[in-house]
Amino acid sequence: MVTYHKTTDTFTAGTMTLSQKYYTSDKVFEQEKERIFNTYWTCAGHQSRIPNPGDYFLFNLLGESLIILRDKDNQIRAFYNVCRHRGTRICEAAEGKFSNSIQCSYHAWTYGLDGKLIGAPFMKEVEGFRWEDYPLRAAPVEIWEGFIFVHIGLNEPEPFAETYAPLIGRLSQWNMGELKSHQRISYDLKSNWKYVIQNFNECYHCPTIHPLLNKYANYTSAENDLVEGPFLGGFLSITSGGSMTVTGRTCALPLGELDENESQRGYYYSILSNLLLNIHPDYVMFHLVFPESPGRSTVVSEWLFHPEAAKQPDYRPQEAVDFWHETNLQDWHVCELGQQGVESKAYTPGWYTPRESLLAAFDEHYLKVMGN
Amino acid sequence: MVTYHKTTDTFTAGTMTLSQKYYTSDKVFEQEKERIFNTYWTCAGHQSRIPNPGDYFLFNLLGESLIILRDKDNQIRAFYNVCRHRGTRICEAAEGKFSNSIQCSYHAWTYGLDGKLIGAPFMKEVEGFRWEDYPLRAAPVEIWEGFIFVHIGLNEPEPFAETYAPLIGRLSQWNMGELKSHQRISYDLKSNWKYVIQNFNECYHCPTIHPLLNKYANYTSAENDLVEGPFLGGFLSITSGGSMTVTGRTCALPLGELDENESQRGYYYSILSNLLLNIHPDYVMFHLVFPESPGRSTVVSEWLFHPEAAKQPDYRPQEAVDFWHETNLQDWHVCELGQQGVESKAYTPGWYTPRESLLAAFDEHYLKVMGN
Amino acid sequence: MVTYHKTTDTFTAGTMTLSQKYYTSDKVFEQEKERIFNTYWTCAGHQSRIPNPGDYFLFNLLGESLIILRDKDNQIRAFYNVCRHRGTRICEAAEGKFSNSIQCSYHAWTYGLDGKLIGAPFMKEVEGFRWEDYPLRAAPVEIWEGFIFVHIGLNEPEPFAETYAPLIGRLSQWNMGELKSHQRISYDLKSNWKYVIQNFNECYHCPTIHPLLNKYANYTSAENDLVEGPFLGGFLSITSGGSMTVTGRTCALPLGELDENESQRGYYYSILSNLLLNIHPDYVMFHLVFPESPGRSTVVSEWLFHPEAAKQPDYRPQEAVDFWHETNLQDWHVCELGQQGVESKAYTPGWYTPRESLLAAFDEHYLKVMGN
Repeated sequence: MVTYHKTTDTFTAGTMTLSQKYYTSDKVFEQEKERIFNTYWTCAGHQSRIPNPGDYFLFNLLGESLIILRDKDNQIRAFYNVCRHRGTRICEAAEGKFSNSIQCSYHAWTYGLDGKLIGAPFMKEVEGFRWEDYPLRAAPVEIWEGFIFVHIGLNEPEPFAETYAPLIGRLSQWNMGELKSHQRISYDLKSNWKYVIQNFNECYHCPTIHPLLNKYANYTSAENDLVEGPFLGGFLSITSGGSMTVTGRTCALPLGELDENESQRGYYYSILSNLLLNIHPDYVMFHLVFPESPGRSTVVSEWLFHPEAAKQPDYRPQEAVDFWHETNLQDWHVCELGQQGVESKAYTPGWYTPRESLLAAFDEHYLKVMGN
Repeated sequence: MVTYHKTTDTFTAGTMTLSQKYYTSDKVFEQEKERIFNTYWTCAGHQSRIPNPGDYFLFNLLGESLIILRDKDNQIRAFYNVCRHRGTRICEAAEGKFSNSIQCSYHAWTYGLDGKLIGAPFMKEVEGFRWEDYPLRAAPVEIWEGFIFVHIGLNEPEPFAETYAPLIGRLSQWNMGELKSHQRISYDLKSNWKYVIQNFNECYHCPTIHPLLNKYANYTSAENDLVEGPFLGGFLSITSGGSMTVTGRTCALPLGELDENESQRGYYYSILSNLLLNIHPDYVMFHLVFPESPGRSTVVSEWLFHPEAAKQPDYRPQEAVDFWHETNLQDWHVCELGQQGVESKAYTPGWYTPRESLLAAFDEHYLKVMGN
Repeated sequence: MVTYHKTTDTFTAGTMTLSQKYYTSDKVFEQEKERIFNTYWTCAGHQSRIPNPGDYFLFNLLGESLIILRDKDNQIRAFYNVCRHRGTRICEAAEGKFSNSIQCSYHAWTYGLDGKLIGAPFMKEVEGFRWEDYPLRAAPVEIWEGFIFVHIGLNEPEPFAETYAPLIGRLSQWNMGELKSHQRISYDLKSNWKYVIQNFNECYHCPTIHPLLNKYANYTSAENDLVEGPFLGGFLSITSGGSMTVTGRTCALPLGELDENESQRGYYYSILSNLLLNIHPDYVMFHLVFPESPGRSTVVSEWLFHPEAAKQPDYRPQEAVDFWHETNLQDWHVCELGQQGVESKAYTPGWYTPRESLLAAFDEHYLKVMGN
C-alpha cells in the first residue's frame, strides 16, 4: 500500500529556485548531456508503436538518431542510425517496416535486424576485415510498463531495475503495457527542458493559467507520492467525478481494476531523464521532453487508451486530446515566459511556495547529480 | 551663447578608423555591454508615450526587458520585467495600461505600480519570507528634455546631470519636453551599432547617397558643436530656407522661439549610449540604436511635433516622415555594406577626412572608455 | 603518355575514414582556412565569364568578397571588394561591367581597373596622405586551362606552376581555355566540404544511388590517374559509346582532337582547394566547392561547351545539364546523410574499400597538410 504526503510535508521554507546558469549556460548544457542524459535511461516511446516484427521508428535526441525496432524474435532493440562504413545515416523515414534487413542507401552495406553486418560490396576481397567487428552499434534497451527505455551513454549503464527500483511494479494496476496509442503531437518550445519538468510538477499555477483543468481538478488536493530521486510524483483529485477531459466525463474504458481512490484521481510522475506521465482512470497522456539547447526544447505528447476502448460505442478520445492540448499550450507559453525572465540579469533565485515541494525536490536531486 | 567650430578645426590628419575587432568580436561586444551600455544612461523613449498614470511600454535592450510606467503620482519609473518568484517575464504587450497593480500571469504574484510585492498566494504561511525584500527590481530613471533615460547597469550610476553636464539646458529653446509623438518606425540592420552612430556623425556621404537630403541641406556648411565626450553634435544649413522635408518647406508649427540661425539649421546630436537626435525648426526625429550582436542592430526612429501642431490646417507631418524614412534606408544600406567590408581580412584602418572629425572624436572617446 | 592505375593498385587494406572532428569541429574548420584555403590556390570560375575589358564578377568565399575583372589590357585581376577609406564593400551586383573605374557608393572614393586610388573627395587637402599607399588590395591570379585561380592567403603563395606541376599541360587536348559557359546552378548542402570531395572521388556508390549514371558509365571500369597530392583523378568508361547525358548520346561538338580512349571516357579531377572537374568528350561540367561552416557548404556547378557548339544544329546542352543536375541532387543528398551520421557519437572511422582508393589518398594528403 502506497502512502502519500501532503505537499507541504516535504517542504522546507526558504528553498530557492535554481540560479540563472542552469537555464542559460552552454557549459551546463554539455554537463547535463553527460550527467543526466548519458547517465539516466531515456524513454523512446511506447511499445504499441512497433507491434509487429520488422516495425521500427526513429528516436532522435540531442543530435543522435536511434533505430528502435522489433526483431524477428519479438525483441525490441535499439541501434544507432549510423553506417559502419563511412558513417552515413541509414534510415530517414520517421517510422516504417524492415523486411529482413537494414540497408544503407549510400553503398548498400547491409545489416540484419540483430545489427550484424551481412553485406558489403567488395569487402570480401579486403584482407584482415573482420565482419563481426562491424555490426550496427546497439544501445541498451529496457521495457517498463510498456515504455521503451534506452541508454544513450557510451558507458555501461546502471541496471534499470536498480536506478528506478521504487517504480518497478508500483503502477501496474493501470496495465500500461497493454495500452494502444491514439495520437501524438509535437511542440517546439523556446524554453529550457527543466522549466518544462518543473512546470509539470506543480499545480500552483492551475488557477491562473488553466481555467479548464482547474474546473475538473482541485489543485489544493494535490498530494505527493515519490518525493526523492530521479522520479517524482503525486496526484490530484478529479472533482467532476469522471476524468480530466473537456467534458469532465470519462471518455473510454477504464484502464484496469482501479480502487475508489484511483478512479477519482489524476496521477503525475516525472521520470528522469525525459518522461512525464499523466495517468487518468481512462487514459494515459505522456510527454517526452527533448532538450535542443539551453533555451529550446521539443515536447512530444502522446495519448494511450485501453486496447479494447476503440470498440466501445462511447469512446470519445478527442475529449482527452483536446483537454491536454489546450492545457499544454498554456503550459508551454508560461515556460517560454519563464525562460525569457531567467535570462535577465535581474533574475535571482526566488522562494518556492509549499505548493512547489516537488520542484524543490527535483532541483535538489538535479544539483546533486550535477555535482553541485 | 554657444560657439560652433568648423569641422576641420578639431581634426588631426592621420586619424585612422577603428580596427576590425571593434566591429566583429564577440568579446568586444561583451565589453561594450559593461563599459558602454551598463555605464552610460540609455534612452528608452519620449515621455509623451505614457501621458497618463498607469500607462506603460516595454523597453527591450540587449536581452533585458524593462517596464517603463507612469505611476499614480505621475512619476515615471522603470522595472525589470521579471517576477521575483520564479523569474517569469510578466508583461508581454509592447504597451498598455495598468489599473492599480502588475500581476504575473504564471502564479498571480502581484506588485504595486511602485514595484512593491502586494500579493503572493500561500506565501503568507511561509516562515521567514520578508515581502519587503521582493519588490520588482527598479532601474534608475532620469528625464532630460522629455526623453526618458534609464540606467541598466547593476552598479550605482554616475548622476545623469554630471555625465551629461554640457547638455543640461543647452537645447531647451526647442521645448522638446512638450512635444508629441507622431510616428515610430523600426528597422533591422546587419551592421554594428557603432557604424550607425559614425554614419550619423558625418555628411561627407550626403552627395553620394542622399540626393534628397543634399537638395535641401548643404553638407559643406556643417559645423561642430560638441566635440568631446559621450555626446557629439553640430548642425547643417537648410538651403531651402524651410525645413528638412520632402518639399523643403516647414510642415508644422515651429517648436519654440527660435532665433534666425536656429530657424535655418538642422541640428544633430549623438548621445551615448543610444540616442541620435535630429532637431529641425518644426520637428524632431530621433533614433534609438539597439545593438543585437557585433553584426546586427535595430534602430527605432520616431517623429515628434509641437503639441498644438496637429490642430493647424497646414500640418503635413508625412513630409517629415517620408524625408527621413527615405534617408534612413539609404543610410542603413551603406551601414550594411560597411559591416560586410570591415569583416574582411583585407580591411585595415583607413584615414578619416576632415569632414569626419566627429567620427574621430567618437572613436577616441570610445577607445578611452573601452580601456584602449 | 599518361599511364593509369587500377583503383586497387594504390590501395592499402585497413585504411580508415577520417575521425569525427574533421567534419564537425569549429577549430578544425579554422585550421582548414589557414592550411588549405589560404595555402592552396582557389578556383574562382572560368575566364569565359568575363570576355571583355571592364567585365567583372564577384567571387565570395569564406566571408571574403573578391572582384574578378578583366582590365583594359585584357589582364584578369582580382581585388578585395573593400574600400580603403572606411572598409565599405564596394560592389554589390554579382556581375557587371566597369567603364573606366571602380567607385565606392559611400563617399565616392574611386579606383582604376588596376586598383590604384584615383579619387577621394577632400583628401587632397590632408597632409601626409600618400595616395599610392591606398590601392585596392589585390589577390594573386593565375589562369590554368581557362580556369581563373586566385590566392586568398595574405602570405606570398607558392607559384601555381610549382604546386600543381603535374597538371600543367596534362589536360590540354580538351582546349578548356576556349570553352564557353552554358549554365550555372548553385546548391546549398548541409554537409562538410570534404564529404563533397570524397563523394566525387568514388563511383562505388553509383549502382546504389545513380541509376541514370550507372546506365551509361561502368563504375567497375574506373582507373586512377593522379593518386597523390592536392590533385587526384581518374576516369570511367562511357558504356553508351556516346557521352554522359540523359540520352547517352553526345550532345555537342567534340572539345578537341581526342584519341579513341579519350572519346569514350569521363575523366574526373579534384584539385585543391575547391575545383572538381568532370571532362566528357563533348562538354566539361565543373563544381566549385564553398565551405560555409563545418556542416554546411555551397556547390556551384557550371557546364562548358565548345565555342562553336551552339552554332551546330544538333546542339542539345540540356541533355548534359539534366544528367548532372539529377546526379548532383542524388550526391548532395547522401553527402547530407553522411554529415548527419558522422556527427553522431556512435561514429568511428570505418574501413575504406578498394574502390575508394582516391578517398584514402585525399585523406592522407589532407592530414599531412593539416599537420596530423
